Amino acid sequence: MKPKISLITLGVDDLDRATRFYGEGLGLPQYDFEGEGVAFFSLEGTWLALYPRAELARDIGITVAEGPAHASVTLAHNAPSREDVDTVLAQAVAAGATLIKPAKEVFWGGYSGYFQDPEGHYWEVAFNPFMDLT
Amino acid sequence: MKPKISLITLGVDDLDRATRFYGEGLGLPQYDFEGEGVAFFSLEGTWLALYPRAELARDIGITVAEGPAHASVTLAHNAPSREDVDTVLAQAVAAGATLIKPAKEVFWGGYSGYFQDPEGHYWEVAFNPFMDLT
Repeated sequence: MKPKISLITLGVDDLDRATRFYGEGLGLPQYDFEGEGVAFFSLEGTWLALYPRAELARDIGITVAEGPAHASVTLAHNAPSREDVDTVLAQAVAAGATLIKPAKEVFWGGYSGYFQDPEGHYWEVAFNPFMDLT
Repeated sequence: MKPKISLITLGVDDLDRATRFYGEGLGLPQYDFEGEGVAFFSLEGTWLALYPRAELARDIGITVAEGPAHASVTLAHNAPSREDVDTVLAQAVAAGATLIKPAKEVFWGGYSGYFQDPEGHYWEVAFNPFMDLT
């Protein structure tokens, strides 16, 4: 696993409010993205994403009730291929992580899975065929 | 505010276990740090820190009871001077954040404060005279 956090996602209650705070308020450069329901900011060294808490919980595959406390922030590690995603997930599990969601093709066109580290933090491991964040 | 997350801190229940997971398990490069009670990993583009949840809550200035759910992860933005720390905190508050801890000289020799974004996420804004993470 390359030592890199590709993206940090903050679960939010109000996406518009959060996007204004980080975009207009703090002046972070928002990435012009055609999709709706999520906001991306391109930072130096990593990306910041804002995503509704319930959607984030659903993406991980946990219930919304479990979500707010445990899934308020997720870290993502992007890998250069589907095979590398599987390899990193297997490495994490071998090291003591819990596989939460085996990697599969996902709605946005990538290949992604989740593990939970021994302390309860969620990591997405993803291959993105449209943008190289590795 | 420069668009950069300097450091991501994960609150942990067992620092040794967490350090083994990220160091030996995932192979992230641990930074050789003389202090105890915290672990740092130097990643591409940002740093990862591991810190006991109760200590993390104390550092923010919230009670431990409030800690686990809301302070499980913190993001840090390092600024190049004490004045810049104050400026960034003021900018965040003007944008709708809540000032949790006004910046002050802290035990490790730096100058640091915390704000909470409108969604509840905690950010430390810090000047580190020993290492430039800006």
